[in-house]
Order: sequence, then structure tokens, then C-alpha cells
Amino acid sequence: MTNRRIVLAAHPQGVPTPTDFRLEDTPVPVPQDGQVLLRTEWLSLDPYMRNLMEQVGPGYADPVPLGATMVGGTISRVVESRHPGFRAGDLVVGAAGWQEYALSDGSGLMPVGDLARPSLALGTLGMPGFTAYVGLLDIGMPQPGETVVVAAATGAVGSVVGQIAQIKGARVVGIAGGPDKCRYAVEELGFDACVDHRDPRFAGLLAAACPDGIDVYFENVGGAVFDAVQPLLNVNARVPVCGFISHYNGGVAEGPDRLAMWMATLLSKRIRMQGFIILDHYGTRFDAFRDDMAGWLAAGRIKVKEDVVDGLDNAPAAFIGLLQGRNFGKLVVRL
Amino acid sequence: MTNRRIVLAAHPQGVPTPTDFRLEDTPVPVPQDGQVLLRTEWLSLDPYMRNLMEQVGPGYADPVPLGATMVGGTISRVVESRHPGFRAGDLVVGAAGWQEYALSDGSGLMPVGDLARPSLALGTLGMPGFTAYVGLLDIGMPQPGETVVVAAATGAVGSVVGQIAQIKGARVVGIAGGPDKCRYAVEELGFDACVDHRDPRFAGLLAAACPDGIDVYFENVGGAVFDAVQPLLNVNARVPVCGFISHYNGGVAEGPDRLAMWMATLLSKRIRMQGFIILDHYGTRFDAFRDDMAGWLAAGRIKVKEDVVDGLDNAPAAFIGLLQGRNFGKLVVRL
Repeated sequence: MTNRRIVLAAHPQGVPTPTDFRLEDTPVPVPQDGQVLLRTEWLSLDPYMRNLMEQVGPGYADPVPLGATMVGGTISRVVESRHPGFRAGDLVVGAAGWQEYALSDGSGLMPVGDLARPSLALGTLGMPGFTAYVGLLDIGMPQPGETVVVAAATGAVGSVVGQIAQIKGARVVGIAGGPDKCRYAVEELGFDACVDHRDPRFAGLLAAACPDGIDVYFENVGGAVFDAVQPLLNVNARVPVCGFISHYNGGVAEGPDRLAMWMATLLSKRIRMQGFIILDHYGTRFDAFRDDMAGWLAAGRIKVKEDVVDGLDNAPAAFIGLLQGRNFGKLVVRL
Repeated sequence: MTNRRIVLAAHPQGVPTPTDFRLEDTPVPVPQDGQVLLRTEWLSLDPYMRNLMEQVGPGYADPVPLGATMVGGTISRVVESRHPGFRAGDLVVGAAGWQEYALSDGSGLMPVGDLARPSLALGTLGMPGFTAYVGLLDIGMPQPGETVVVAAATGAVGSVVGQIAQIKGARVVGIAGGPDKCRYAVEELGFDACVDHRDPRFAGLLAAACPDGIDVYFENVGGAVFDAVQPLLNVNARVPVCGFISHYNGGVAEGPDRLAMWMATLLSKRIRMQGFIILDHYGTRFDAFRDDMAGWLAAGRIKVKEDVVDGLDNAPAAFIGLLQGRNFGKLVVRL
């Protein structure tokens, strides 16, 4: 029996390319006492993984070493258990990475429960949904009638940010790439407006869609979108920062130096900008999130869109597409 | 009787010059019913005034129109009162601006009280001290044993930030311009260290003075100081932003674009950065501040240093010097 896995072959220069990954065959490992053997059924692909492909700086998670299996959240079936807490056949959420089989000592594994769609535990009911919940509610703190703007509005995080903001009574303006995504955000998710960032008139369209300015900007893309948002921010605006895809593939950005301008805005408008990493919040907020989100899903108040890719072999190309906005909905790989 | 006043003669290009101001003689105004006539005894000079010399952007205070009297906090004697709340001879804190005489309808005037040194009401017991108090305690939230870094460490705001941080049990590292100010911060104010930002080894010296990193950076200067602080910020650091003298004289800053790097830091270290304008906080926090500060002053736990300039004529040159760090202590003009 072989375990197929995808390892980090090279640190990417800018946007990752297929040769930064390598598919390998290794023996399926054998569980020892206290361990379970897991077979991956679903693999989550998320933008933060780009950060793990090189050292992004102190404070962040450890990078994946060259030659090691790419890290990733998974839904796995317990194939064999030598752990008292699990039985063969159990379906669990964990972080088995980009591979077919993995060992676990049970730490970090949670039962999927009776979800009709197990992959929800990687999206709306998992890390991305939790990121939206904590960032929007604990940092963004939208009030009824305020305007919330979220980029990547049809993505795993952005779509949930916008829908929770609506539940809280805010006016929601999405930003997405292309007319199909914008139409989906308005017609299916019910956002008040959605602006296409590829449109050359983008900044003006965003301003027109936010006649009362912006009270909460959920920052997950950075770059030109942030430039267009900045002049529209209201006094006492809040800017939770959960990521910025446009910078991930980075290098040094060319001038002018926009930090000085941003700090002038932050001061004159009394803006609060706060970075957060969702791993910090599981201990205190995950139970509340799971209860709220399960209720909203059951009531049909949160809609879910998945972009399903079949086969581990296709994970690298799908991930590269994710960083370029080619996915439409939460990107998951079905093994 | 003539009223000598200093008006805005021109919008400055970069650092203000003496010709951006003009000394004028006008008649002393006559109070009507409900008004008092004030004679200025002390005029406060503060960095925010640079912002009022041109339109800095929406959200901030209205700029001073060309030809109008420069705005400023003052200690004034009531010369004549046709207002039931004031009597001739009263000493009041207000905002009479850069002039010898002014009318007031009483709004915004507060009695100085029995201060041995009335000018304290423009500094440690006034707006700059209140700025330090709100920014440090409400946004910075220093905990015992944490490291607090404050620039302009011997100035009106910075010296109070550092001393309150010490009262709260933090380790305090100042940044100041030149060895005299650094010596004063350590020997007189009792800061744990103070680093000279003019020293070519500045960034390394700051790192050495902060072996456990920085938990709170009180931002009041920006520029190269912020560049040196940024890599030293700890996870969950707080950055209250009350100003940035180095940017006031502005124009577009040259690249590289440091905003992308800063946002990466803000995210990976979960930093909270928040701008504030002290005028917003008088209603809710000034009483607590006045009580705490009066107690600390009486107990000798907060020390005060003033830089006194004599004569209204000298206000423009003193103000220009303030923006270049030539003052040593809270800058006030005695009329």
C-alpha cells in the first residue's frame, strides 16, 4: 500500500508554480499504540498556505520545510485505531495535510458529527467560517445600519463575513473578481451591492456603492482594493486584517510609500486596525461560533458555495488558481 | 487699545517658515451681553497646529482660513465680564488663539483653579497630558512587566506617557533627539532607557534597549522611528497613534511602499493600531484623568518640564522649532 503525498519542492518566487510542489509515493505508515491511521477524504485549500511555503516572519506559524508534506486541514476516515478515543470508520476533522494517509495521536482531531455535507467542516463550519465570525464580530463590531465592505466576497471567508454582517443588520457591499461572482453575491447571497475589482472604474463604482462611507472593512486582499477603500472609511471605522492575498506573492512593493498616507487617515478618522490569526481564538470563541453558525445554516440564513476539485494530483493547480481568484466558492479537494 | 495677533499668512510648503505667519494689530474687541473679554497670559504651542495650517483631510478639525488668527489653547485673565458665570480677574483655560485679547461666550472656558503654575493646565494637566492618558491607558493598555516605547520622550505628551507607564508597572524605553534629552529621560524621569534617534546606530541601540521586544508603542512621530520599532513589536502589541510629526511637513513619501510590509507585520503579530483624537474623549474621560493626574503630581510621581518662550512675537519661531524637535519640555509662550 502506498501513500501518495504532495511535498514542498521549492520556495516559490512570487506566485507559486507547479514545480514548487512534488507528488511522492511513500509507504502507508503503521499506527502504534495511541495512534490512529487516517485516510483523507477532503482536503481544504486556503490562502494562508502560501505563507507557509516560506518564512514570512516571526510570530506566524512555522513554515513547511523543503521536502515535507504540505500542511492542510482535512476530513479523514479512521482506517485503523489503536487509540481509545476513536474507532475505525469514524469521520474526523484534522490537519493531515496534502496526502492520502496520515498518522495521528488524536490531538487536534474532532468528530465531524452528523453533517450531511462533511466538507462544511472545512469551510462555513470550520476555520474559514470561524475566521469570518471572529474578525467581523469581535474586531469589526458592525452596528445595525452601518456599511460593511468585504473583498473576496464569494470566497470561503468573505461570503460568510457578508452574510453575518447582514444578520447583524448592516448594509453589505462585496468586492469580487468578475460579473459572475458579483451577480452571485447580490442575487444569491443577498448583498446590497457587489463591485467588480477588475472593472477599470472600480474605485468610482465602490464609492457609488457606499454613499454613507465604510464603517467596517474586512481586509483579506490588500493592494489596489485597499487603496480604493481607504478614502471611503468613516470616522471610527474598524479594519480587521485576516490576510492580504495580493501581497502573498510579494517581494518589495514599489513606491510611493503609502504608509504615511495610511497613518494620516488612521489618525484623522480614529480608525482601529487589528490583525488576528484564527488559531488564537479556538479556546475562547469556537463553541459560540459553532452554535451560532449551526443555527444560521439550519435556518437558511447562511448559504454555502463550494468549488470542488477531484483528486490529490490537482491540488497544486487548484491552489495556484486560488491565489489568482480563479476559484468560485470554498475550494476543497475530494480524494 | 490694540490687540496684537498672529494670523496664517500662507499655507506652508513642507516645514513652515516665518513668512507663513503675520503679526497684525487690530482693535481690542468690546464684549456684548453674555460675553467676556480675555487677555492671554499663556499660549500653548503643540504639533497638531501644523495640521490646521492646511486641509489635512476629511474627519480632522477644520483648517485655519488664510488671514485668520492661529488656533491655540490659552490661559487667559478675564478683563471684563458681561457673562454671569465669570468675573473680572478670573483665570481660565480656553482656546483664545495666538493673540493678546479675545472675546468668548464662555463655552469651552474652564477655571484654572488653584494651580501654583497655571501653565500646567496647558500641559501635564491639560490637553497633552490627557492625550497621553487616554492613548496609553485606553488604547495601549500596558500590563506590569511589559515594555512601553515612547518617542519624543521629553515632550509634553511623551514624558507623561512614559511616567504613567511606569506607574502602571511597565518597563519604559524613551526615544529622544540628542544626549541631553536622553539623559533627562533616564536620570530625571526615571525611564529604564532612552535612545537617541540621531545616533547612526539608532535601530541597533533601540533593539538592545528592548531585549523582550515592544508591547506598546505610543506613536507620535512616525518616519524612521517607526521603521526601527516595527521589527521589535511583540505578538499582541498595541500601537496608539496620536500623531506623527515627521509626516506633518509632508508631501508624498518616496518608496518602497512600506504599507505592505506593515500589514504583514500587523497580521503575523496580531497588532492593534488605533488612531485617536483627544477632543473625542473629554466628555467621558477628562474627570478621571484630572483626578488621577492631580494625585500623581501631588505625590511627586509625575515630573513636569516646561520650555517657556517670552512674547507673542516669538511664537512662530518657537513653533517652527517644535516641529524640528528644538524644544525641551512642554512649549508655552508667556505673554
